[in-house]
Formats: sequence, C-alpha cells, structure tokens
Amino acid sequence: MTTSTKSAYASLKERFHLLSNLTGAGSILYLDSMTAMKPGSEADRSEQSMALVSAGQKLLAHPEVKDWLDEAESHADGLPRDDRTNLRLMRREWVSATALPEALIRERARLEIEGNNLHTRHRDSGDWAAMKPSYEAAFAVAREVGGIMKDALGVATPYEALLDQFNPGLRLATVEREFARLEEALPGMIAEAMERQKSAGPTRPLPRIDLDALEKIGNDLVRDLGFDSSRGVLYVGEMHPMSGGTPGDSRMTTRYHADDPLDGLFTVAHETGHSMYEQNTPAAFRYQPAGHSMGMDIHESQSMILELQACRTPEFLESLSRRFSGRGDDAAFTPENLARRLFRVEPSFIRIHSDELTYPGHILLRFNLERDLVAGRLSVSDLPEAWNEGMKKTLGIVPPDPAKGHMQDVHWPSMGIGYFPAYTLGAMGAAQLFAAAVKARPEIREELGQGQFTSLRQWLAENVHGKGSLLTQDELFTAATGEKLDAAHYMSHLSRRYLGRDYRATSSSGG
Amino acid sequence: MTTSTKSAYASLKERFHLLSNLTGAGSILYLDSMTAMKPGSEADRSEQSMALVSAGQKLLAHPEVKDWLDEAESHADGLPRDDRTNLRLMRREWVSATALPEALIRERARLEIEGNNLHTRHRDSGDWAAMKPSYEAAFAVAREVGGIMKDALGVATPYEALLDQFNPGLRLATVEREFARLEEALPGMIAEAMERQKSAGPTRPLPRIDLDALEKIGNDLVRDLGFDSSRGVLYVGEMHPMSGGTPGDSRMTTRYHADDPLDGLFTVAHETGHSMYEQNTPAAFRYQPAGHSMGMDIHESQSMILELQACRTPEFLESLSRRFSGRGDDAAFTPENLARRLFRVEPSFIRIHSDELTYPGHILLRFNLERDLVAGRLSVSDLPEAWNEGMKKTLGIVPPDPAKGHMQDVHWPSMGIGYFPAYTLGAMGAAQLFAAAVKARPEIREELGQGQFTSLRQWLAENVHGKGSLLTQDELFTAATGEKLDAAHYMSHLSRRYLGRDYRATSSSGG
Repeated sequence: MTTSTKSAYASLKERFHLLSNLTGAGSILYLDSMTAMKPGSEADRSEQSMALVSAGQKLLAHPEVKDWLDEAESHADGLPRDDRTNLRLMRREWVSATALPEALIRERARLEIEGNNLHTRHRDSGDWAAMKPSYEAAFAVAREVGGIMKDALGVATPYEALLDQFNPGLRLATVEREFARLEEALPGMIAEAMERQKSAGPTRPLPRIDLDALEKIGNDLVRDLGFDSSRGVLYVGEMHPMSGGTPGDSRMTTRYHADDPLDGLFTVAHETGHSMYEQNTPAAFRYQPAGHSMGMDIHESQSMILELQACRTPEFLESLSRRFSGRGDDAAFTPENLARRLFRVEPSFIRIHSDELTYPGHILLRFNLERDLVAGRLSVSDLPEAWNEGMKKTLGIVPPDPAKGHMQDVHWPSMGIGYFPAYTLGAMGAAQLFAAAVKARPEIREELGQGQFTSLRQWLAENVHGKGSLLTQDELFTAATGEKLDAAHYMSHLSRRYLGRDYRATSSSGG
Repeated sequence: MTTSTKSAYASLKERFHLLSNLTGAGSILYLDSMTAMKPGSEADRSEQSMALVSAGQKLLAHPEVKDWLDEAESHADGLPRDDRTNLRLMRREWVSATALPEALIRERARLEIEGNNLHTRHRDSGDWAAMKPSYEAAFAVAREVGGIMKDALGVATPYEALLDQFNPGLRLATVEREFARLEEALPGMIAEAMERQKSAGPTRPLPRIDLDALEKIGNDLVRDLGFDSSRGVLYVGEMHPMSGGTPGDSRMTTRYHADDPLDGLFTVAHETGHSMYEQNTPAAFRYQPAGHSMGMDIHESQSMILELQACRTPEFLESLSRRFSGRGDDAAFTPENLARRLFRVEPSFIRIHSDELTYPGHILLRFNLERDLVAGRLSVSDLPEAWNEGMKKTLGIVPPDPAKGHMQDVHWPSMGIGYFPAYTLGAMGAAQLFAAAVKARPEIREELGQGQFTSLRQWLAENVHGKGSLLTQDELFTAATGEKLDAAHYMSHLSRRYLGRDYRATSSSGG
C-alpha cells in the first residue's frame, strides 16, 4: 500500500513538475514578446502560447492523472502535511482543467486575444459601439465558465468561482464584507483629505533628471530592495511595466520619465515586490503547486507593501531624498516636498493615474459592476450609464467619454473578469502585513531611514514568500499578523497618512 | 472511408502543429538564454527545455497518434501529393520519437547538458583526463542510439542513422563518395594556393572601424540580403553568433570587432542565410513537418551561399568596398585588398578560425574519426593521437595541446555526433546551387555589383526555401541544378578562387 501511494504521488509530482515548467516557459515567452519580439511575430507567438496551454491541458486531463489522484488520495494519511497540501492543490488544478468543455476553453482563449486586440484598437477613440459586442461575449462566456466552475469548486455563485480562479480560496463574502466597510468610509475620507491639503504648502516642481542617472538610482533601489539579479532581469523600455518569468528567472520591466522621476522608481519598487515574492517561494516545493505563489490578491500585497508602504514611509523618504542629492534643485527633493507630491489627492478618470486614496474608488465600482454583470442584474447595454453614475457617487466626477470611463481598462474584454478586487485586497493585505512586520521587527523603520530593507525582506520571506501555497489565505494572515484579513488596518493606514489621525477615532466621532 | 482518412490526417495535422509550436517555443527560449537570461537561471531554463521536449515526446508517442498514422496511411492515395509527403514525414518523426527507450532519451539529454558544461569548463585548459569520460559516455550512447535507429529507419549502419538525424535522407555512401574526392584533391590544392599567394602583393591592414558605424553597415547588409526584420531580431553582443527561432520569429546574433570589421559582416551574412531560409519556408505547410526546413546540410548551404559565395564574388566586393568608403583609409578597402584578406590561405589549429580552403580539412578529419569511433574501429583513448596524425596528414600541422586539438569543439561531448559533415556538405551544396542560380539568372552578378540580392533571393526562395521538406535532398538538387549533389562544383569553385584556374583542367594536367 505504502509503495503504491508513494508511486502515485511521485508520478503526480513528476507530471506537475512538467506542467509548472510549461507554464514557466510561457511566462518567459510572454515577457520576451513585450521586450524583444517584433510586432510581426505576434501571430507566431500566439500559436506558441496556445500550444503550451494545449499541451499542459492534455497532459493534465490525461486519464492516468485521475487514477494517480484517486490512488494517492486514498492513502494521503501516509504523506507529510505539506505533501497533503500539495496533493490537495493538484486535485484543485485537475478539477479546474477538466471541468470545462474544450470548446469553452478555446472560446475563452480566443476572446482573450481578440479582446486584447480590440481594446488596443478602440481604447483611445472610446468607440463603444465597436467594443460592446466584445464585452457581451466576454461576460456571456464568463457567466458560463463561472456556472460550471461554481459546481466543480463547490462555491456559492458563478462570480465567486471567477474570483476564485485568480485568488484561490478567497470567499466572496470576505470581499463583500471588507469592501463594504471601505465603501462606506471612502467618500468622506477623500473629501476630508482634499479639504486638508488646501492648507498644505505649495508643492515645488521636480527638476528633470537625466535618464541614465535615474536608471542608476533605480538599479540601486532594486538591489537594496533585495532583488536577486543573478537570476533575474530588469528591462528598461517604453512598455507598460510588468513582472513575470519564474522563481529561477524573474523578468520585470520599467520605464523612466525624465520629467517625472518618482513614477519610474515607485514602479520599480512595485515590480520588485512581485518578483521577490516569486524568487523566495519555497525551494523544497519548486515546480510544484504548493511551491507556487498564492493568488493575485496576495501577489498584489507584495508589490504594494514595497511601493505603497515601505517606500512611502517618512523614514524611507529621507533616504529617497538623499538618493537625489546633487541631481539638481535639492530643495525639490526634500522629504517634505516628496511627500506633498506623493500624497496629493485628486480624483482621476483614469485608474492607473489615480493616487492611493482615490484608487480604491475605481476598484469598488469595478467590483460592484462586474459582480452584477455576471449575475445578470446589470446588462452590458446599461454599463456606460452605470459607470458614470458610480463614478459620480464614489469619486464625484463624471468622465466625458467612454475612453476615460468604463473602456479604459483591458480586463473585461480580455476575460480578466474577477481580477479587479485583487488590487484593493492587495492594498489591504499590504497595510495589515506591514503593520505586523513593523510590530514584530521594530528595526524595520530605522533601516528604511538608511535606505535598507533587510529586516522587512527577511520577515516577508519567512511569513509570506517562503510559504508558497502551503497555507490558505486565512492561515497565512493569521500566522503572520494574528488575525484574518481585516480592512481596518488599511483604513487606519489611509487615515493616518491622508487625514493625519487614527481611523477608529474618526469612526466614533464621525457620522 | 474518405471521411475517416480525412479525419485521421486532420488529427495528425493538429497534433504536429502543436508539436511544431512546442519546438518553436524551445528555440525562442534557447535564443533568449543566449541573449537576455542571466547565468543564474541556467538550471531553470534547462528544466523548461526538458519539459518542452518531454511534453512533445509524450504527445507524439501517445497511442492515438499511431492509430491516426495507420488509418491515414491506409487511405493515403486520397491525399494530394504534398500531403502524402507530409504524412510520410509524420511517420518518420513518430518512428524517431518512439524507437528509443525513454531512459536512453533522458541519458542523451543529460549528457548533452553535462557535456556542454564540461566543455565550457575544460576547453581552454585542454584537460583531456577531465573530459575523456564525457567523450566515452557520449560515443557509447551515440552507438546505442545509432544501433536502434538504424533498424527503425532502415539504414545501413549506426553512424548512418546518426547522420540521418541531422540530415534526413542523407546517405552515408553519398558523404563517403563526395568527401573522398575532396580528400584526394585538398592537400594539393592547399599547397598550390599557398605557393601561389607568395607572389601576391602585400595585404594592407584594415583600419579600426567605429562599432556604431560597423553596426550600421551590418544592418544595411542584412536589409539588402532580404531579411524580414518585421518578424525577426538581430541581437548584437558578445555571444557566439547563432540563429534560431521560428519562421515567424527569427532570432540571430552577431558580434562586431572594431579591429576586424570584415568578420562581423560575413558572420551577419551567414546567419542571415540561415534565418532567411526559415522565413521563406512554405506558408501552406507552416507548423507541419513538410513545411520545416530540411536537414542541417541544406541549412548550412543557405548560410554559405551568402557568406562564401555571393558576398565574396568579385562583384560584391566592389559593393562592399563602397560600403566602407569614407570610414578611414580607403586604400585598405579596395576590392583587391579585401580579396587578399578574405582569400588568404593559412592552416589553423582552430576550425572556426580557418580560411575557406583549409576549413574542410578539419571536417574531413572529424568525419573519419567520428565514423570510426561509432563503429568501434577507433577508441576514445586513441583519439588524441589519431587527431594529431590526421591534422598532420590533412593540413600539415600538429597542435601543441588538446585544447588546440580534438578538444576545441563542443559537438562530440554534447552529443552532436554526426553533425560535422553538414558543414562541408553545406559548402558543396552552396557552390552547386550558386552556380545554378547564376546560370539561370545571369543578372545576379550585376546585381551583386550594385550590392543587391533580389534575383538570388528570389531564386533561392523558389528553388530551396519555399520547398520546405516537400522534396528529398536528391529531388531538391536535381530540380534546382539538374543533378544530384556533386563535389565537382565545390572543387571548381575552390580552384577558380584559390588557384586561379578551372578544376577539371587541373585534374587532367596534374599528377
């Protein structure tokens, strides 16, 4: 019995090792397509990506895999705890891969590519009539996929199944509960912050910084953050910043602007957070489901804990100020002036140009709309109006056209339905984890003042990165912070940074 | 019946389409590893490469593929001619993939990586004791692989099976016959050429050329040769020059040296020849076995027809001279001085530094030795002595150490046993094809004088590139040149260029 258990699980490990490497190959090829590849090779690359997905699908759906799973599960008690987790995740991947009919998988893949291309073509003109069919098809397919996956995964609704595919184990109830608290507080916080900043001194404009100098500052920051550049590449170019690759071969991109020097640096911090998470996943489970990083909400928390938390602390702004010393107009690079620039609140039509405080307004709206669109409570025809109403309610602004409205993002037409919540869940997780890290390792703040991240990096490696997928989300937060995800930490953080006072105090005195 | 034929063949086309794209993905990843990847990611990349090979192997060896092959072959008469060829090549790939036991495939893959690494480590020191076990293992595995593949492919000897894997359909008898003619003539030609060049005028050294200027000249040449850079990338760096990728996404690399400007340009011409072959393979069979380029001998002919034939004609040297005009010391860049540099004959210990006339001496020796090593007529222990003896006999020089001797090349320890003949077969093919092209399209020479390759490129696209693998080697040469591969064209070419007279005339008057 023991022998056959071991054998079935060993066969599974070998197969999932192979599958993990096919996915890794696909990720490197994707980053290549964004950095080295010529546009004329797009069709070829798309064939390769589909071949990798198709090969992985065939090798996972092969009947022998189900036999191995059944056999290994019938003797799972004989396995060490972490291997039992690995086995459970294998079953989950198998369920996800086999639940959907092949025609539906192909249709989803086709819409993803088509939606991406259509978005690129029509985004700037905001031609809604041209894009609408693509949104309708995407939500129809998402609804069908969600419906099937709901039963396969045993979750409550089709939308919860879509959430789950990006954030394994995340419950819709969690998102609804924590988002509701934020939704209630946010408009008041934004109004108060904007009122408050009227009395702040004027912001001194930053001088232009030579791109080579900026790249040098960026490279130093990446090194200080702890990125292992012996097994990873930072491309500098004009493409939209991203990170990908594998734990053993991280690839990230950034872009620097001479007249907006902070943007490129905080982008680099963000992408480094993603990459370091991957680099520090547990070596003992490398290329296994339990060794992979967790869902996108945790992933976003690891980029934001560097970009929004550590690198915007008053302590780190001291270090950042010194990094610009002698690069022209030192008065513009004082920590105080940097803070005024970084923490300026101003609702924007465009999500990716939004400041930290108004950004979640975009996400709350996306969440409400996509949940209702999948549930059929809202139709795509009514989307433009619903968007404008929601923006007015949440941020007090109404976009002049769909390009600056609901059509600005690629996610929906390209089948990323269910992704948006991860951004704000990540911001919440980052606030909660950073508070816990600083409490556990008080030296973190002093190190940040010296521009160093050693203790924070160690804490993250130990409590988040090194856990891979060996814990559930609730287990991870509880082990690291003493409690499950709780939006209160995020709101306390926003309140302290933007209102200059504690959040709980606000709540009790407000309303 | 027609329906089921069609269905089995359609299923095969779908499967081989997928396999072709997995191979293509592997090739892009390989080029990435040579250009973008950091050394610390080598192990990760090696896992990915093995996963791609393993996935392809599993999807090709799947029992359904054999069923489809049997079914499609039983009704092959209903297929158009080119599809019958495609079906025949599918069977060939299937036989190659299924004949070898999995353990042997893994061992070969392992030795390939290990041999590569050991070669890198010990090449410069020439530590034969450290490398010898790797050579022994490689030849033992090659012998075993060849023994099995001999029966599977129905060829005469294990070595012929190894030749066949790099050059599908190439017969050992052809190589032996054409190489014997060259082997007989070569020492005399080298001696005569060296005697003759004593009376040539002195060669004027070339001035250093700024690397940016050199890269500009190289890019212009690549464009003029006809490389489609809308779907291909030329990297410039320090790596060993190579080409790869896919027909839809060619990747090639070159390196330029300020003090040896010609080297980088002829390298670019060589790699462009490889890449343009791929770019122009038949679109109707893209991602199918019949649409792939042929063996490495034909591939090398396509690089050499540009590097050694077209770009070294007296006509093109006129154009090349003009490309350097104004870059310093015009007297050094006269066509006559360029010719004296390019056509200087001087036996070298190192194959890749050899001139055109002595280069085949290295290949003839490699061919004789590897054939005897596989057959067991020569042992690895006797290799160093056999190498030195062979060099003395062929080129009249004896290397001072193994690093400058048999250990200089990576091919043998990395399982490239059977590859070497392709270089000289390629040179022979290039001479024969170029002669036929110029005969069919006399305007080629005039165009070369103007630095243009239009007619040559069209002739090659029509007669070689566009044929993919739809013809056998004999059919390809016969259709393009009126006869099978014949070394006489190569020897005529060498004789005219290095001895200043016709080859046949030599034969009859010599001896």
